[in-house]
Amino acid sequence: MVFDHVALVSKDISNSIDWYVKEWSAKILYQDETWGLIELNGTKLAFVTPNQHPAHICFEINEKFILEKLNKNTFKPHRDGSSSCYIRDPDGNFIEFLFWPNKGEKNERT
Amino acid sequence: MVFDHVALVSKDISNSIDWYVKEWSAKILYQDETWGLIELNGTKLAFVTPNQHPAHICFEINEKFILEKLNKNTFKPHRDGSSSCYIRDPDGNFIEFLFWPNKGEKNERT
Repeated sequence: MVFDHVALVSKDISNSIDWYVKEWSAKILYQDETWGLIELNGTKLAFVTPNQHPAHICFEINEKFILEKLNKNTFKPHRDGSSSCYIRDPDGNFIEFLFWPNKGEKNERT
Repeated sequence: MVFDHVALVSKDISNSIDWYVKEWSAKILYQDETWGLIELNGTKLAFVTPNQHPAHICFEINEKFILEKLNKNTFKPHRDGSSSCYIRDPDGNFIEFLFWPNKGEKNERT
């Protein structure tokens, strides 16, 4: 498992991204009305809307990890080709496990 | 600014850390009753109690960054020699900026 991003809840993705760009020189990686992804000096920060996703921390994982640790979980496909599942820690904090089925050798590092 | 850690709220630091160690092979970096710090494959995850700190994302910064961007903020010293301040984004999400006054050249990277 390799850290991928932290996702924060935003009521207005555009407003959030503008603030991070203006105040902290973030780079925009993706933006629409329900999802945003920025980079802050090499670290990815996502924005999710209250009705779509919970705030979470995301780790990228590979197939071996899924087979060993998440074989009972259902992975939901995303529009970008990846898929993921969410679990909750003892306090209800959300952890997303992100999998890229066609990423090939890059997943060897996880 | 360089990503340092994500902090999640935990009602029971010991219980949270046990779960991350057992389920996800986390390493314990620090633990007491009000604060915990673990490493998940190179990424630091902190646990804070509801009354002590908010959930947050933390970036380490250097003196130049403070002078340029945070010169109106008050930095609170910690018991480990570091100091930090918190700001909030437009949605109220907390960002901690962490400064190590005596870290020397290592801060040149931020």
